[in-house]
Amino acid sequence: MTGGEDRSPGYAITAAVRGSFDDVLAATRQALAHQGFGVLTEIDIRATLKAKLDVDIAPQVILGACRPPLAYAALQAEPSIGLLLPCNVVVRDAGDDATLVQVLNPDMMVSVTDNPNLVAVATDARTRLCAALDSLRPAHQTS
Amino acid sequence: MTGGEDRSPGYAITAAVRGSFDDVLAATRQALAHQGFGVLTEIDIRATLKAKLDVDIAPQVILGACRPPLAYAALQAEPSIGLLLPCNVVVRDAGDDATLVQVLNPDMMVSVTDNPNLVAVATDARTRLCAALDSLRPAHQTS
Repeated sequence: MTGGEDRSPGYAITAAVRGSFDDVLAATRQALAHQGFGVLTEIDIRATLKAKLDVDIAPQVILGACRPPLAYAALQAEPSIGLLLPCNVVVRDAGDDATLVQVLNPDMMVSVTDNPNLVAVATDARTRLCAALDSLRPAHQTS
Repeated sequence: MTGGEDRSPGYAITAAVRGSFDDVLAATRQALAHQGFGVLTEIDIRATLKAKLDVDIAPQVILGACRPPLAYAALQAEPSIGLLLPCNVVVRDAGDDATLVQVLNPDMMVSVTDNPNLVAVATDARTRLCAALDSLRPAHQTS
């Protein structure tokens, strides 16, 4: 891990990737697509906070990733699960030519809802998202 | 509560509102704006699943609500909190002229991260989101 943080928090799967923010953001989009995730939403947090509050933070984008078969299965198992969809993928500049790519651990869906019928969906999502992060060839990855 | 669900799940704050899906969706946008939340993202889940999987579900939209001062404070307290932003607000058709409006309880930010520095932000967000739901004058509201 780079960028002044010692470890990935428990709710995240984190990859510290060598490369510029823009390059890693583009690679992350490709890696998600390769695992069957479309990006349904995108929030440029830095631009939003600059425009609304005139404050400066490091480049950071939240991608809302969705693999439709998994979303559909999750909704059938837990009608309110839309509150935890899509799966957030955060890309943020960590300085020193390093960019963090973080995914909200899909296992959170199970622990938050306490619904065992979400285990298979969460496991499938986690496996695919971890594969996407692995394909970025991070220097380190923790989960 | 209407629509075949007995209660709001613990991770949600739910209002069952009398009115059509379209009317309640419009009212929800106004209520969020009145509480200082902008809608940064919007996902039409029904349309997405129909287009991608050719399956039919009841009308359901996920709004990504953000109050910039709260988002900024959260990011300063917890660098990875972008994984739990923006605050999801789900509006979904529950049948019988009832529409459910659900918010992911902001207190989840504290429990998931185990970061006490997020308590004030989460409490402020919860207070404002509950006020937004209350303004919809639901038949019942549970949290």
